[in-house]
Amino acid sequence: MTIRLDRERLITTMKEQAEYGATEGGGLHRLALSEADREIRDWFVDQLKTAGLSVRIDEFGNIFGRREGIDSDAAPLLVGSHLDSQPNGGIYDGALGVVAALELVRTLNDEEIETARPVEIVNWTNEEGSRFQPAMQGSGVWAGAHDLEQEYAKTDDDGVMLGEALDDIGYRGDVPAEPTTDYEAYLELHVEQGPVLAEAGADIGIVTGIVGFTWGSVTFRGEADHSGPTPMHHRRDALVAAADLITAVRRIPGMLGERTVGTVGYVDAEPNSINIIPEKATVTWGFRDPDDAIVEEAYRRVLAEAEHAAKREGVDFDTEERMRAPAVTFPDQAVDSVRKAAETRDCEYLEMVSGAGHDATHLASVCNTGMVFAPSEGGKSHSPDEYTSWDDCYEAATVLANAALELAADGGTVK
Amino acid sequence: MTIRLDRERLITTMKEQAEYGATEGGGLHRLALSEADREIRDWFVDQLKTAGLSVRIDEFGNIFGRREGIDSDAAPLLVGSHLDSQPNGGIYDGALGVVAALELVRTLNDEEIETARPVEIVNWTNEEGSRFQPAMQGSGVWAGAHDLEQEYAKTDDDGVMLGEALDDIGYRGDVPAEPTTDYEAYLELHVEQGPVLAEAGADIGIVTGIVGFTWGSVTFRGEADHSGPTPMHHRRDALVAAADLITAVRRIPGMLGERTVGTVGYVDAEPNSINIIPEKATVTWGFRDPDDAIVEEAYRRVLAEAEHAAKREGVDFDTEERMRAPAVTFPDQAVDSVRKAAETRDCEYLEMVSGAGHDATHLASVCNTGMVFAPSEGGKSHSPDEYTSWDDCYEAATVLANAALELAADGGTVK
Repeated sequence: MTIRLDRERLITTMKEQAEYGATEGGGLHRLALSEADREIRDWFVDQLKTAGLSVRIDEFGNIFGRREGIDSDAAPLLVGSHLDSQPNGGIYDGALGVVAALELVRTLNDEEIETARPVEIVNWTNEEGSRFQPAMQGSGVWAGAHDLEQEYAKTDDDGVMLGEALDDIGYRGDVPAEPTTDYEAYLELHVEQGPVLAEAGADIGIVTGIVGFTWGSVTFRGEADHSGPTPMHHRRDALVAAADLITAVRRIPGMLGERTVGTVGYVDAEPNSINIIPEKATVTWGFRDPDDAIVEEAYRRVLAEAEHAAKREGVDFDTEERMRAPAVTFPDQAVDSVRKAAETRDCEYLEMVSGAGHDATHLASVCNTGMVFAPSEGGKSHSPDEYTSWDDCYEAATVLANAALELAADGGTVK
Repeated sequence: MTIRLDRERLITTMKEQAEYGATEGGGLHRLALSEADREIRDWFVDQLKTAGLSVRIDEFGNIFGRREGIDSDAAPLLVGSHLDSQPNGGIYDGALGVVAALELVRTLNDEEIETARPVEIVNWTNEEGSRFQPAMQGSGVWAGAHDLEQEYAKTDDDGVMLGEALDDIGYRGDVPAEPTTDYEAYLELHVEQGPVLAEAGADIGIVTGIVGFTWGSVTFRGEADHSGPTPMHHRRDALVAAADLITAVRRIPGMLGERTVGTVGYVDAEPNSINIIPEKATVTWGFRDPDDAIVEEAYRRVLAEAEHAAKREGVDFDTEERMRAPAVTFPDQAVDSVRKAAETRDCEYLEMVSGAGHDATHLASVCNTGMVFAPSEGGKSHSPDEYTSWDDCYEAATVLANAALELAADGGTVK
């Protein structure tokens, strides 16, 4: 059987959630554990209760709503995403996945469908990693990738500890932040945040895995001098070395693979004054590829380029790899369900490796995991310009729901 | 005749002034119109009064001390520099010139020398241009290069207006901020802030002029996108274009002249996040050369390079020249007096064009102007590591004093 979601209700609910933390430009500013996050969480809990789900909140603020299955001891299916946003981000990133999960259980209710397995829907704490680092923190703690106490102690730019912030908004729950049972599978719908689907004219993306990445930084240390009386050959300009590395990072991906990307997103110079030769300059790197060996090669090359850049300008440098995540390949089962749902809908799909990390990254270490991507117009994300048409939202949510139905019914009865 | 300064008193006075705004690392943090500036100004006014000078403070906070000449109607000789410092700067930059001027009149007093012309010594407001822009502000207002009211309205990073800040420290005086009489000449002693003298083993520098410069900025505007799912060929990365320009600015001087220098001292990227492709990046440029035509050519080239960089990365850009100062050539009279004093002392000197701007830049439009440079060890300046030996301080102050004596005596009697 297939289920049919209520298109208008999906749209209405998307618009409703977008009111919490709405910005003037039509975007969303709903940082993790902020007042806006408290409000959207309260709203979400209301929705869960209205849908007749039993709500539990874990020690890290992850919010679960559970719809019982015929066999309440069966390993549940988990479906969800996140409700927090980037600073001045868009209204689809994360929220679409949570709203689609909500629509799934609402429709199961409307159609009076009993699933063999319990279906749980989830809002993960702090996926974005803007106010507190790292990203995908709530799912990471829950999946055992991070230590709970260590993450409680993380601070935002104002020195507020995450644990305090959780208390402040009243979302430090009492359920352990860990899988307290086996899970059958995890499904997540998310906007692509890249241009591939929209450009190919595909309706949805079937995500088969997530690229691996290396994140790190290089700090060059030269000599601060007055920019006027210091001859060019006397200079040791940290920013010139940093510029050299920025150029290298732009070049490296093209030498490694067609899916490789590399970015310098951050630069900081000191003293950063028009009239002083920069003494210190820090740049970050980020490389991603579906192949871990290519990520390793990119890492090797960025270190070599940092060394060359430092030598050319006669400055010192040090490097720090801040994060390395291996590529994730989703096992077949959940991906097959998504593919089957897409084929049943007869929609145009692309199979793809996600270029961005998602909560599904951590979930893949816990259970079968699958993801559905909705197209992002022009690939824009983390911006108020982020846009996915309601048609595309609806299509992706429908595929998610039908894949979920198959996974939840597995081993039980559907009436 | 020649005069001989009191070496120990010069050193003691230098050490004394360095206590106001002293930093732990042995430097000076005495931003214009700060509390530390108020304290050093109070100290300076005390020194002027103790030396029997008549003190006047102009509307822009420039502080003058006047020692009468035999002919009190004669055009005075003006000698001075500035007491403000860079953030965490050194103890010699500016202060040495003021202390040397003080030692000059103290010695004239001690030796009971009457000069034909009045001798005035001066502390200019905000030479550094750190807290309020532009640099050389007090001398610029006084010489008529800037409008008084416009400069009062300048704000610091906290939004404090310069006029308020002057009132807050009690240094908005009542004398017009302009030359109220003709001046015979202006002399200034300053540390070189470059490595040329120290490297050549010279005792002092005779400054024959000041390089011209262009200062400006380029802002590149690309597109912010998630750094993971955005393929390399979809990117319009503003920071990559900025890096390209930083490299070009490093290269341009070597194509133009042996004295040309070019610097990118400032960079700013937005949103400046490790995981987002930079949407906007701003860099500044600064080029200097003793030849205005070369400065113009550097300006032309940096604009062309900005255009190339923008085209290569497919981003938009705009440029703004923030300041252009023509090269200044000091007329012979004051320079000759400095040279004569140096030759009388039999010290090793180099004639040079200053690579940095000084208050003398503006004074050159008012009267004959000359400068003496003291060597800067390793060329270091704007840093606590700034260093000039007491021997070198004393030598330069002595040359300054003897040049002053000649200029002040001119047309009168010295007994």
